[in-house]
Amino acid sequence: MPRVRVTRRFTFSAAHRLHRADWSEARNWEVFGDCSNPNWHGHNYGLDVTVEGEVDAETGYVFDLKQLKDLVESRIVSDLDHRNLNVEVPWMAGVNPSTENLVVAIWEQLAPALPAKVSLKRLVLRETSSNSVEYEGT
Amino acid sequence: MPRVRVTRRFTFSAAHRLHRADWSEARNWEVFGDCSNPNWHGHNYGLDVTVEGEVDAETGYVFDLKQLKDLVESRIVSDLDHRNLNVEVPWMAGVNPSTENLVVAIWEQLAPALPAKVSLKRLVLRETSSNSVEYEGT
Amino acid sequence: MPRVRVTRRFTFSAAHRLHRADWSEARNWEVFGDCSNPNWHGHNYGLDVTVEGEVDAETGYVFDLKQLKDLVESRIVSDLDHRNLNVEVPWMAGVNPSTENLVVAIWEQLAPALPAKVSLKRLVLRETSSNSVEYEGT
Amino acid sequence: MPRVRVTRRFTFSAAHRLHRADWSEARNWEVFGDCSNPNWHGHNYGLDVTVEGEVDAETGYVFDLKQLKDLVESRIVSDLDHRNLNVEVPWMAGVNPSTENLVVAIWEQLAPALPAKVSLKRLVLRETSSNSVEYEGT
Amino acid sequence: MPRVRVTRRFTFSAAHRLHRADWSEARNWEVFGDCSNPNWHGHNYGLDVTVEGEVDAETGYVFDLKQLKDLVESRIVSDLDHRNLNVEVPWMAGVNPSTENLVVAIWEQLAPALPAKVSLKRLVLRETSSNSVEYEGT
Amino acid sequence: MPRVRVTRRFTFSAAHRLHRADWSEARNWEVFGDCSNPNWHGHNYGLDVTVEGEVDAETGYVFDLKQLKDLVESRIVSDLDHRNLNVEVPWMAGVNPSTENLVVAIWEQLAPALPAKVSLKRLVLRETSSNSVEYEGT
Repeated sequence: MPRVRVTRRFTFSAAHRLHRADWSEARNWEVFGDCSNPNWHGHNYGLDVTVEGEVDAETGYVFDLKQLKDLVESRIVSDLDHRNLNVEVPWMAGVNPSTENLVVAIWEQLAPALPAKVSLKRLVLRETSSNSVEYEGT
Repeated sequence: MPRVRVTRRFTFSAAHRLHRADWSEARNWEVFGDCSNPNWHGHNYGLDVTVEGEVDAETGYVFDLKQLKDLVESRIVSDLDHRNLNVEVPWMAGVNPSTENLVVAIWEQLAPALPAKVSLKRLVLRETSSNSVEYEGT
Repeated sequence: MPRVRVTRRFTFSAAHRLHRADWSEARNWEVFGDCSNPNWHGHNYGLDVTVEGEVDAETGYVFDLKQLKDLVESRIVSDLDHRNLNVEVPWMAGVNPSTENLVVAIWEQLAPALPAKVSLKRLVLRETSSNSVEYEGT
Repeated sequence: MPRVRVTRRFTFSAAHRLHRADWSEARNWEVFGDCSNPNWHGHNYGLDVTVEGEVDAETGYVFDLKQLKDLVESRIVSDLDHRNLNVEVPWMAGVNPSTENLVVAIWEQLAPALPAKVSLKRLVLRETSSNSVEYEGT
Repeated sequence: MPRVRVTRRFTFSAAHRLHRADWSEARNWEVFGDCSNPNWHGHNYGLDVTVEGEVDAETGYVFDLKQLKDLVESRIVSDLDHRNLNVEVPWMAGVNPSTENLVVAIWEQLAPALPAKVSLKRLVLRETSSNSVEYEGT
Repeated sequence: MPRVRVTRRFTFSAAHRLHRADWSEARNWEVFGDCSNPNWHGHNYGLDVTVEGEVDAETGYVFDLKQLKDLVESRIVSDLDHRNLNVEVPWMAGVNPSTENLVVAIWEQLAPALPAKVSLKRLVLRETSSNSVEYEGT
């Protein structure tokens, strides 16, 4: 059976700052610039979730996109949307919320929650229209 | 010689429904929801065709994009645009037109039609701005 | 108080054909071309709804966008999404579903449903990435 | 001489919450929902600045877009980008940073700073890909 | 009858430089910067053509978009696409090809060519993703 | 440590023609069509630069995007933007500036300039909204 990748796009709006608590404010500023503003800033993030699997001969689906939507919204987006990534997300606690760290944390939350018939293939996380990261697991 | 991938983007507007003739309407509705509406619905599909090959030392082309355009329009887009995917496309006859099944069928139509110097590398088929599938063959 | 326009974007996927029942199929084809395909075709429509009003001094809102979203989804989008515009939309009955006729019918459905504090200012309806219509009422 | 409108697009990323200090947290939540999250959230805002004027017969310009860029970046974007709209923007002090209030405040900052030969014609401020406001002054 | 605006989007790729032959190269550089590079540069221009008229009661059209497409491609796009705006466009001869001057020239070419039942309402010409001009005639 | 890909998007506007000096104008026209117009044409190119590396445990960065931006702008974009690709770019001298040849030349310029901790993973170069090329090195 052919293996196809299915992608669904999500968005969420969150506040954050790049910051290490074990560094002085001066060093945070030196390394992270205005991304370390103590009063926060924020983004409309875009998240593309790609799963891969065999096309089900009966339904023609790899994975029902409504189920994928429900899964990602309940496990990921509802924890991030209209939240502060530094202080409100249990599975980002103690992690500096760079886009790289966030995409890896999303992967670790999402991969085990998928049914066995599909595998998480790729996450693309866009922070702005110019900047994005891409992760395919280890 | 370096190998480069060349992509051209196409669009077509088609009607379809997700439906198996060997299932009752009730079961079609249960599995496919309003995508199985017997009166049809439709989409503006986006199709990205990516071929890969060596850069021709003389022309600087992997494959003349005008030739690729003509090939995909005559073999694929003209069969799909302003058509009903369930009833009017010979090479989709008897196939439930999910995005997954459609992308595989497009691959099977297109791959043998390409000249030997390039290989079909990837198809991305977008059904809506949120949903897409990607296929790289078997 | 300043008057501001507030816009919310909606999408819906529908089937249609351009067709007059009082014309022969031949004449429908002559005037409407493949848009009159008897087996239908379809689009992902985009709809931008713009309302205008004074900024409420207390809330800073012209109109709560969640209320606008609920209103447009219940009055307009739920009647159009995953439907056939020629046969399933009560307020389009007997109307050839050109983009022009559709935008006027949406206006007539939506304008009386808005609260007195705002006025419907503009509708933009996109049929494809190249074609759109815009209506500001009479 | 023909009058032409010239538009330049800007982006900035900021944190905010919808909040009135003279309301209880409960009432803020009731009216503004998760937009009133005390830990903030944020957006990538898009701002389209449109000025109108006669085409200069000598240069063919209405207004040098590099000058417009410098003016808007120094007067507006540098005050908003990577900032907290509730606590760090002097010309938004005491104002609930709804998109409506923000677009009016930007107008009041920018209009007097433009040279006499052009007039500020329109501001479009996008908060998300679905929501935007538009202001043309009083 | 309701009046509706109909918009079709076009693209063309052209070379140009901002330059006045009666100025020295030094003054051209001082005013136009690297846009006056004697070796040219170029853009993918986007052009939105908006016509307004009554909705035809018989067809539901303001103006057949295929006719509008043919008209704009034959009168405008074919003269501009893959051309040099300074030296190859008869109706831009002797005109410094700023976006402002180009949009006015397109208007003057296009407005008289439209049938009486519609009027040219608005042209939007985008030079880059950040910069555009808009013209509604005199 | 997880390996993540980081992408930054760039744009530049340039003139070019497809042309081989050792071919007659007639043959250039036969092979390259209006892309070989001796008076040039041009594009707004889009370039996505993707680097891959381990996430730095201290900063949460694979590579500071400001450093990547500075590097690509100084080594690549400043040589291409508002330039003529056939006559003004030292590292394209004698090369027919097809998109394929350009993306390979950018790779060869950029790959050796990156620090050892990251590798250049992928370049995507878009010539128009329909046409793009992708290169991952040899």
